[in-house]
Amino acid sequence: MKTIEQFDIANLAKKAQIAALQTAQLDTITKNRLLTTMADNIVANAQHIISENSKDIAQGESKGLSTAMLDRLLLTPERIQGIRAAIIDIVNLPDPVGSKSAMQKRPNGIEVGKMRIPLGVIAMIYEARPNVTAEAAALCIKSGNGVILRGGSEALHSNLAIADILHNTLKEFSIAAEAVSVVPDPDRKVIEKMLTLNQYIDLVIPRGGEGLIRYVSDNSRIPVIQHFKGVCHLYVDKAADLDKAINILVNGKTQRPSACNSLETVLVHQDISTEFLSKAATALVEFKVKIHACEHTIEHFSDATLATDADYDAEYLAQEIAVKQVTGFEQAIAHIQQYSSDHTEVIVTQDYSRANEFVRRINSSVVMVNASSRFSDGGELGLGSEIGISTSKLHAYGPMGLEALTTEKFIVFGEGQTRS
Amino acid sequence: MKTIEQFDIANLAKKAQIAALQTAQLDTITKNRLLTTMADNIVANAQHIISENSKDIAQGESKGLSTAMLDRLLLTPERIQGIRAAIIDIVNLPDPVGSKSAMQKRPNGIEVGKMRIPLGVIAMIYEARPNVTAEAAALCIKSGNGVILRGGSEALHSNLAIADILHNTLKEFSIAAEAVSVVPDPDRKVIEKMLTLNQYIDLVIPRGGEGLIRYVSDNSRIPVIQHFKGVCHLYVDKAADLDKAINILVNGKTQRPSACNSLETVLVHQDISTEFLSKAATALVEFKVKIHACEHTIEHFSDATLATDADYDAEYLAQEIAVKQVTGFEQAIAHIQQYSSDHTEVIVTQDYSRANEFVRRINSSVVMVNASSRFSDGGELGLGSEIGISTSKLHAYGPMGLEALTTEKFIVFGEGQTRS
Repeated sequence: MKTIEQFDIANLAKKAQIAALQTAQLDTITKNRLLTTMADNIVANAQHIISENSKDIAQGESKGLSTAMLDRLLLTPERIQGIRAAIIDIVNLPDPVGSKSAMQKRPNGIEVGKMRIPLGVIAMIYEARPNVTAEAAALCIKSGNGVILRGGSEALHSNLAIADILHNTLKEFSIAAEAVSVVPDPDRKVIEKMLTLNQYIDLVIPRGGEGLIRYVSDNSRIPVIQHFKGVCHLYVDKAADLDKAINILVNGKTQRPSACNSLETVLVHQDISTEFLSKAATALVEFKVKIHACEHTIEHFSDATLATDADYDAEYLAQEIAVKQVTGFEQAIAHIQQYSSDHTEVIVTQDYSRANEFVRRINSSVVMVNASSRFSDGGELGLGSEIGISTSKLHAYGPMGLEALTTEKFIVFGEGQTRS
Repeated sequence: MKTIEQFDIANLAKKAQIAALQTAQLDTITKNRLLTTMADNIVANAQHIISENSKDIAQGESKGLSTAMLDRLLLTPERIQGIRAAIIDIVNLPDPVGSKSAMQKRPNGIEVGKMRIPLGVIAMIYEARPNVTAEAAALCIKSGNGVILRGGSEALHSNLAIADILHNTLKEFSIAAEAVSVVPDPDRKVIEKMLTLNQYIDLVIPRGGEGLIRYVSDNSRIPVIQHFKGVCHLYVDKAADLDKAINILVNGKTQRPSACNSLETVLVHQDISTEFLSKAATALVEFKVKIHACEHTIEHFSDATLATDADYDAEYLAQEIAVKQVTGFEQAIAHIQQYSSDHTEVIVTQDYSRANEFVRRINSSVVMVNASSRFSDGGELGLGSEIGISTSKLHAYGPMGLEALTTEKFIVFGEGQTRS
């Protein structure tokens, strides 16, 4: 792997800030043309990207990467078409930058409102997924930002090949190359240094395991989008439609258990637990879901282990779930408030007031009534492409689309007014 | 001064988080009644507050505090009526919590939108101004948050007296006392510890000098609202109405020079600089404004010094201003981008396109056309009471009212939908 000695991340970040002044001023038509050209250029250079990617794959195999990791790393002609399609989706999203809102006339005649603007420079730190390189770059450009991309070192050849193409496209449009950068140095010290550059970088978005996100949060002087884990709860209320509840349970747990919006714990009201759990046991056994059941519910499952406190805290990311009976709504709320990761919680109920109360009292980033937790992502919620998800309340909360890469300034239009 | 050994701030913050679950659920009528009662109780106990305040004043005098600091510290019956009025203003503001927005039906029939919720627990660190104690508490309660108040140690007796009254009022309404706390220990180590408690505290708002804010930013694991300084610029364009420009200059500089929204630098287009500056010199001399002028403009002032780079960077907070001639719009933009503190910038022009371009290209938190920078505060911009101002783009940007003490979660209403 090519290592550039003492890569000057501060210099790059400084240039990115200057380049971001340029991207902030691009009109929507130009940004869309630029992104479409990028997408086309990526496809036109598919051969080269795949050949660089094969170096990463070979190194990954010799390093003994897992099959899952190698699969995420692999680029094929079809996947490159997929990257193109993802960028074209971003082209088709409305441009948040420059929109005015809440304009009002004050008593003294000045007109006051807000205008949406880019954040500035975004730093992304992510796993070895080369498609993220192109898609994150596209989202940051569409929202008028500059971006510094630090992908997993296992994907460095692929990422640099994609970056080359992006740079050539930026050049075609007379935009500074530093609007999009891939950090060429895999040394973790570069990240450490980058996290101190709050004079140049406005936001850090780490994507990956809990360890990485804690490391970034603990060491950053720049605001960080935090998403530690997804311990999503389903509460099956006394007044639940049990067929809906079973569907939502099975879909939430089994459809893609490795996703952070999958269910990890189901809470069942005691009044309907016998009927619900006998159905649930049958449904879950089909998917070989491993059950960690509380003392009141373990009898319903043929092969369950007794749930511990650690089970209620666990993000299994596998065909595995914790099951707990609750005495009622209040105990369900208390359990969720204690163990929530502030990601997504679901109630299944036909009771109007209880549905509303759940929505009011649970302040996780996504709160649902009678719908699968698997809808908790940017695409499904209507944001278009997703750059990440925030489970801390500051700046953005929940899945983050283009708008979460912007902020609002105040604008004031007067006719010479002064303050008395 | 009373010092409690090893005050347990972690325990307080933990209890504040639990209390905040309670304040988050209060309806608007209850919150308004609570705040009105607080306001009345403060007035009813004015004698006691003033007597505790006199201890702070006596200690402050013996410690040799400046007249300005002592004045900010002083409470009188009139000022206590002022605190009451400020709280009643907050009662009259609309409650941001619980409002739904952007509700839309997705193709699969789920209804998706956002609901505004409190942030959780806010920590305020501020100077020795006892009125802030009551007003910040009122803003945090109205927005459904818990709050930990750490005011300047010089105001500790006053703050604890006010806190007592707030606690008694909370008790009347059966709300946990920890919803509002004044840190009783003036030791700075308590702040240091508090800034690590990101599991309990959601936001830190420091108010005070640049040193305090840098200290908090550099040491906090909790997101911090940053407002280092206000170096506000006025650009007098070639197409300016010079009478408006003079009024806006004089008002912006002289009306209250100690405020962060006062002007610190005026940039003048070369084509109108002779006419403008001769008028400006006459106007400013009346207020004994000290002038730091560039080499092209110094001749217009009888008693100016030559402006240095440090002058363009300075927040004078006094009757003192930097004056610079620019060759045109682009140089004005470049100067502002170099020296801006991201607070407030103003253009005076009658040119439609240039006004729009200034608003688009300058991304400070408040950007104005033909209006005094002195309007850059929460009250004047229509937010009602202001809890602070942010000059960093994350979460809030610009003056912060009630809404900036909240965030939005996603809410989803389905009829049993699952993901395919």
